[in-house]
Amino acid sequence: MGKNRDLFTFKPSNRIIFFQLQYMHQYTAVDLQDTIVALSTPQGVGAIGIIRLSGPNAIHICNAVFHNKNLLKQASHTIHFGTIRDEGKIIDEVLVSVFKAPNSYTSDDLVEVSCHGSPFILQSVIRLFLKKGARLAKAGEFTMRAFLNGKMDLSQAEAVADLIASETASAHQIAMQQMRGGFSKQIEELRQKLIDFASLIELELDFSEEDVEFANRQELVSLVKEIRTLLSQLMQSFKLGNAIKNGVSTVIAGRPNAGKSTLLNALLNEDRAIVSEIAGTTRDTIEEVVNIDGIPFRLIDTAGIRAAQDTIEAIGVEKTMEKLRQSAIAVFLFDVEEVSLEEVQADLENFKVKEVPFLLVGNQIDKSEKDYKTAFAPLGEVLFISSKDQTNIDVLKQALKGMVLDQEVNTSDTIVSNIRHFEALQQADQALNDVLNGIEMQLSGELLALDIRQSLHYLGSITGQVTTDDLLGNIFGRFCIGK
Amino acid sequence: MGKNRDLFTFKPSNRIIFFQLQYMHQYTAVDLQDTIVALSTPQGVGAIGIIRLSGPNAIHICNAVFHNKNLLKQASHTIHFGTIRDEGKIIDEVLVSVFKAPNSYTSDDLVEVSCHGSPFILQSVIRLFLKKGARLAKAGEFTMRAFLNGKMDLSQAEAVADLIASETASAHQIAMQQMRGGFSKQIEELRQKLIDFASLIELELDFSEEDVEFANRQELVSLVKEIRTLLSQLMQSFKLGNAIKNGVSTVIAGRPNAGKSTLLNALLNEDRAIVSEIAGTTRDTIEEVVNIDGIPFRLIDTAGIRAAQDTIEAIGVEKTMEKLRQSAIAVFLFDVEEVSLEEVQADLENFKVKEVPFLLVGNQIDKSEKDYKTAFAPLGEVLFISSKDQTNIDVLKQALKGMVLDQEVNTSDTIVSNIRHFEALQQADQALNDVLNGIEMQLSGELLALDIRQSLHYLGSITGQVTTDDLLGNIFGRFCIGK
Repeated sequence: MGKNRDLFTFKPSNRIIFFQLQYMHQYTAVDLQDTIVALSTPQGVGAIGIIRLSGPNAIHICNAVFHNKNLLKQASHTIHFGTIRDEGKIIDEVLVSVFKAPNSYTSDDLVEVSCHGSPFILQSVIRLFLKKGARLAKAGEFTMRAFLNGKMDLSQAEAVADLIASETASAHQIAMQQMRGGFSKQIEELRQKLIDFASLIELELDFSEEDVEFANRQELVSLVKEIRTLLSQLMQSFKLGNAIKNGVSTVIAGRPNAGKSTLLNALLNEDRAIVSEIAGTTRDTIEEVVNIDGIPFRLIDTAGIRAAQDTIEAIGVEKTMEKLRQSAIAVFLFDVEEVSLEEVQADLENFKVKEVPFLLVGNQIDKSEKDYKTAFAPLGEVLFISSKDQTNIDVLKQALKGMVLDQEVNTSDTIVSNIRHFEALQQADQALNDVLNGIEMQLSGELLALDIRQSLHYLGSITGQVTTDDLLGNIFGRFCIGK
Repeated sequence: MGKNRDLFTFKPSNRIIFFQLQYMHQYTAVDLQDTIVALSTPQGVGAIGIIRLSGPNAIHICNAVFHNKNLLKQASHTIHFGTIRDEGKIIDEVLVSVFKAPNSYTSDDLVEVSCHGSPFILQSVIRLFLKKGARLAKAGEFTMRAFLNGKMDLSQAEAVADLIASETASAHQIAMQQMRGGFSKQIEELRQKLIDFASLIELELDFSEEDVEFANRQELVSLVKEIRTLLSQLMQSFKLGNAIKNGVSTVIAGRPNAGKSTLLNALLNEDRAIVSEIAGTTRDTIEEVVNIDGIPFRLIDTAGIRAAQDTIEAIGVEKTMEKLRQSAIAVFLFDVEEVSLEEVQADLENFKVKEVPFLLVGNQIDKSEKDYKTAFAPLGEVLFISSKDQTNIDVLKQALKGMVLDQEVNTSDTIVSNIRHFEALQQADQALNDVLNGIEMQLSGELLALDIRQSLHYLGSITGQVTTDDLLGNIFGRFCIGK
């Protein structure tokens, strides 16, 4: 049995045991005795396709259709060449990798079958395994088993999905750090200390008539403050983490001749080569992504906006305004030569640009002969650029970054990028604040214990010490099949 | 050195050596001393992505960036967990499979790195390997090395690509049989015997003044006949092989109300579930494929054809006629109740249906009250069906199969499915026929030897005993990268 199935590693009073049981998920719902199978490589035609089998019968099921040697007698972490046969008929020549419990990804016996990458063959082999007693794995079920078997904690398991989805160096680094332990170790250490305090306070309750204090209130205050400092750092990192993970949707708006496309190209300039090199990373949208110091900005071009002349134009303008409302930030671009101060002011007003954080950018200063700085001074802060000459494009990039982040980006710090973690941190912090207030107000041990339990719950939900079936379903449902 | 690099395993006279040298490909053009790298799993996001490295430095290059143990000291066919690092920074936690020469796919040292299936990670790891001295593999280069190293012959190597591309059980079976030796063993045996004869005849030339016959003409005739019998069987199998491999394009034409779509559905009925289950197998065309006894028929629906009323209709009719001309066979469908004999005759004439092999099908006999069999008797053979009631759909399927094949399908026989092999077989057969004629006409040894050399050349080109750079480029260019 893995450690996560045994939640009670601390020496608790009966009351805390009872509390934790309410949050313990129903392990019986997931039958860990099944052997699961899935295609673990992407769909489609390739040189190699890998089929994964995990569970008590994984090696046995594979051995039943594998011809060349007896897989049951092979050492862990060895590879074997042979054929997969269905009633004597060869389906494929394969390499089978054998991993024995507990030294596998899932901690169960695990087999990886490396086939020729033909969808027909892969489908045939999977069907054969199903016939021999395996069942199709659900999304993320291999990783869920790794978690349930204590191979990794919940935040590490979640990082596996983030790692696979990562498209930039920064997102990759955050996910990698989290997968290798990241902040969960720190949280777990402090949580253990808090559990010890909780136990002492619960003990006081058993001796309540005698008015003893086993738990030193001053030490508890120090511990709670220490935990809150960590939580605060982690919560602060979320803004960056979220931007890195999900990108910042950035609308570029302006009149038809403001030079939006040239600006888009100028911003994309250095990145475009890299983007096109990594096949399969670009999504099916019209967005372009520019990477500014590790933060992906999803640039959304818009049709030029101006007062609508007819119905069709009105629809275009409405669409642009919708994009504006949905974006995190907006860049409003105008041609310093072609438009007047009043026109820019009117546009900002008409198109409700001010409803989102926006950057005002005067373009085409290369061809302007007027004193544009003075002319547009009433607008407040305006960034003047020439997308044609690349003048101030770097300044614009830094301004974009500045709109997302107040501080410098330092991705080697521990960074929280998961909204579920962020919310759990916030709630734990709130509960800990209640604990502090309670001590100050000299609340009874019983009420203090309640707030501590709340904090423990939220902290534990990050690493999976306390979970629910729904939560697990949500988390592992995000995974691809075969992981 | 593998056996294919050493083409002279028979004891030849100088003349034959000289002849073969002309066809020997330039091995220097492919530097077998390079270590090549490629992504071997399909592009896209998945649970696992595999990067393959092959060549003298494969293990060394991987070891330079792998942290946990020394890969150079590991046994072949073992798997090792560790991290891939670029200047200390972790790119991924991976499993590395080590295969040592000659026991690998390519016969060279080979490493497979199993990464998390993120395009970003896979790209980063490949770049790192490039930095450490590997170069990107060309399409099919791993398999080409397997061929050049004598691990498989050319027809086996070609079967690897067919195997990966196979979409039906029959296509898969043909490719599998070919990959595992198939007919190339038979051809090679007979070719060796023919080489022995050629040597003897060449020897006669060295003694030409003495008028000796080392090569028994009668035995030569028997051998040549034996070879031609095999070639004839193989050539006969090509019609089936080609149909199975490439499918038979089948146009369904007829007037707008003839019931084409219902027929299409009736034909597809039992197969549709299977098709949609195997993700990634359907191609980006509007065709539907129906599998009749292992032969895929690519059904092409057409707009209903009738005498054009206006320009737009005329374009539609022109398109249908174009599809008709491009298809292998046509099914011409008419409604037995709605149209007259004369109208069908006129349609067949107007739309030039008779330019391709066609099947005449009278539909909707379920609602017909007339004696349709008599009414349409002048058309000759007509198949009467009801696509609504599924009446005679099976008969129609067998008729379609009959149009492609004269004999019964038996996919356990040796089957040639490669047009290059078919052409080489034809040419070898022609040259052998010339040999027989030459013997009959008592031609000189010199002229006989020339014809035998031609036959040897064509036979050898199937298994790769004689090849050219162009040929290899053509063959392996069809492969996906990473195989």
